Amino acid sequence: MAKEYVFCVLKFLLLLLQLVFLIHEADSASVVKFLPGFEGPLPFELETGYIGVGEEEEVQLFYYFIKSERNPKEDPLLLWLSGGPGCSSISGLLFENGPLTMKLDVYNGTLPSLLSTTYSWTKISSIIFLDQPVGTGFSYSRTSLDNKPSDSGEAKRIHEFLQKWLGKHQEFTSNPFYAAGDSYSGMIVPALVQEISRGNYQCCNPPINLQGYMLGNPVTEHNGVNYRIPYAHGMAFISDELYESLKRVCKGEYANVDSRNTECLKLLEEYNKCTDRITLFIIQYPLCETETPNCYIYRYLLSTYWANDKTVRKALQINEESIGEWIRCYRDIPYNHDIVSSVPYHKNNSISGYRSLIFSGDHDMAVPYLGTQAWIRSLNYSIVDDWRPWMIKDQIAGKVGTRQSINQRKALSCSKGGSMANLCRRVN
Amino acid sequence: MAKEYVFCVLKFLLLLLQLVFLIHEADSASVVKFLPGFEGPLPFELETGYIGVGEEEEVQLFYYFIKSERNPKEDPLLLWLSGGPGCSSISGLLFENGPLTMKLDVYNGTLPSLLSTTYSWTKISSIIFLDQPVGTGFSYSRTSLDNKPSDSGEAKRIHEFLQKWLGKHQEFTSNPFYAAGDSYSGMIVPALVQEISRGNYQCCNPPINLQGYMLGNPVTEHNGVNYRIPYAHGMAFISDELYESLKRVCKGEYANVDSRNTECLKLLEEYNKCTDRITLFIIQYPLCETETPNCYIYRYLLSTYWANDKTVRKALQINEESIGEWIRCYRDIPYNHDIVSSVPYHKNNSISGYRSLIFSGDHDMAVPYLGTQAWIRSLNYSIVDDWRPWMIKDQIAGKVGTRQSINQRKALSCSKGGSMANLCRRVN
Repeated sequence: MAKEYVFCVLKFLLLLLQLVFLIHEADSASVVKFLPGFEGPLPFELETGYIGVGEEEEVQLFYYFIKSERNPKEDPLLLWLSGGPGCSSISGLLFENGPLTMKLDVYNGTLPSLLSTTYSWTKISSIIFLDQPVGTGFSYSRTSLDNKPSDSGEAKRIHEFLQKWLGKHQEFTSNPFYAAGDSYSGMIVPALVQEISRGNYQCCNPPINLQGYMLGNPVTEHNGVNYRIPYAHGMAFISDELYESLKRVCKGEYANVDSRNTECLKLLEEYNKCTDRITLFIIQYPLCETETPNCYIYRYLLSTYWANDKTVRKALQINEESIGEWIRCYRDIPYNHDIVSSVPYHKNNSISGYRSLIFSGDHDMAVPYLGTQAWIRSLNYSIVDDWRPWMIKDQIAGKVGTRQSINQRKALSCSKGGSMANLCRRVN
Repeated sequence: MAKEYVFCVLKFLLLLLQLVFLIHEADSASVVKFLPGFEGPLPFELETGYIGVGEEEEVQLFYYFIKSERNPKEDPLLLWLSGGPGCSSISGLLFENGPLTMKLDVYNGTLPSLLSTTYSWTKISSIIFLDQPVGTGFSYSRTSLDNKPSDSGEAKRIHEFLQKWLGKHQEFTSNPFYAAGDSYSGMIVPALVQEISRGNYQCCNPPINLQGYMLGNPVTEHNGVNYRIPYAHGMAFISDELYESLKRVCKGEYANVDSRNTECLKLLEEYNKCTDRITLFIIQYPLCETETPNCYIYRYLLSTYWANDKTVRKALQINEESIGEWIRCYRDIPYNHDIVSSVPYHKNNSISGYRSLIFSGDHDMAVPYLGTQAWIRSLNYSIVDDWRPWMIKDQIAGKVGTRQSINQRKALSCSKGGSMANLCRRVN
């Protein structure tokens, strides 16, 4: 009996220890002063860590947090989500608006190098780059999940993440907060904004100082891909004849074609032949092999070598036991696409008074600006500022048009850019 | 009396000597083995010279002749004309399809360097790069001209030039001959082809072995600029709203607007604001200062330094006494635009059995592919080959569509290219 009692107490203590260990594992946060591949100390403040969400904190979401290089006490706090779903937030950090980028050297088997950028948004705002949904980048689950992640589920989880993150970083609770991202996060961010907004009116959690949101070439409606064909026509990828036939035969529906409409399918094959050798998200580049150093997507290969290096993962404080290979974009991630359109969320958020900035690089055929323009038009806001060139250093970087409700919704496009935000700044 | 007689004889001899001197001066031709700025002997055969045309050979046309690097005895002989009117044929030689190009170093006051190219058309054909009309590049007139050069006059002069040139290079009379060029030469080449064709049926001069002609982004009709606006719309430079208003208010006429149509003029101002900061002939580049080394047109400045260098002009055997400053494009050249449309010439040449290849880079807004497509369509040839990607090394270089009469007229477009032929090959 005494033995049993001692055993029972020991078991209880063990469980308690495991729990403490797990909680420690769960909510880690480390300041990273050096990163392998980058020479010298980092010229900005980087913290990486996990936040556990879900009933038992079984979902461990990994983030990179970079403090504003200007005035972190007053500058906005931004959450940046990458698309996919399933693309690591490193995509934002290294290839879009972050303070680091890959050095595009030919890979020689050693660790790829990182460089500082001059255009980072962290010059004026603090940014949380978040790996979500679970299974993306370095995020993982401690148990097998009952339900696949979904658009609406992610909005809830990210909200929970933010509450917990702010709970642990209370010095940022008063900073103006913005949700942001590109591509598929166009399905998440508007729902997240609504979720945060609702949460702010509910009991017991401190409110998030939400001001608005920002989206670049956002996926907004599942029929958005129908705009690829008019876009390809405008950009001279297909002939007038093919375009006219497609419109007539497929009646504007190019994504979900009735299998009996063989004429339409045949025309779509013709269309594919004309476009299947270009990089969809940045049309000025030809499709090429990831392994080819002068190929645009070679940088992605380098980032994979970098993120899978043991010294890098140690520096980032990755939980090695829980994470297998790092994949930049996990395309087959289990996922439930349960939001059909973000437009109702945009409407609600606008009515609720949140500001939004929607920008769209016009060299992106994955989420072409024509579709973005169409859904913004469907909101029927009045135009307060004409379409005009968007100048950077006296050179055209894109086109800006402003449509304004009482809440100043903006739409602009970056002519030099692809789908990824930072490309907008590439003027030369 | 005797004195007078002797004086008269002397005067006659002097005139004769002057005439001999002038003829010598007129029809010079020198083999150039070395060019300042290029290391080592030239890896191809270059001849430069003047041919005098006109009644008294008062018009001295300068040419660069480069022998085919393959089999000059059998390879085609090409005449290449640059546009403008008033642009030196060096534009073709150094920036389009020639075997040399400018090395894009920052100018340090010394002679700019030249490099070999890998894509030169001289690898498979001999090319005469001709400075025309008179006043262009190194071409000049020995007397003040009674009439300004004109489109139809140039067709005649160039024909005369060719006859004389072939008279002095009889080893090339049996080679297949093609006339070619880009931009404004679209107004000259079709008329020249008709002129040569007619001449071949007339007495006394040996016929020219004319096979066909080739044109890149050719100016064809003076209303061709009207296609710039639909093109700018397709390429996302102007908004749908502005485009619809322009169509409605200006009724498709954007070049010669009735000054009373103030609404149209206002819309055109809006259009200009959206497009006046891009390089018209290669829209992916922003407008920038010639003096800026990373500006696309900086190469033009280097070529001006090069062509005005004394050692270069000596090597090219330029008649220093007759030529002032070399200007790459003499925009204000006196000129009479007397051909309104090249379309009738295209029709005639096609009926006469000459082959033509019309290509059009779709990144050129100066002579947009839409206009070229429109006039080719107006010829009502049947389509024998669908619009399809034009592949170079398994990558899309442009789009090809073929329209064929009995004479195989072809139309294709280079997606990566601007108005200048060689740009079509820039895949990466």
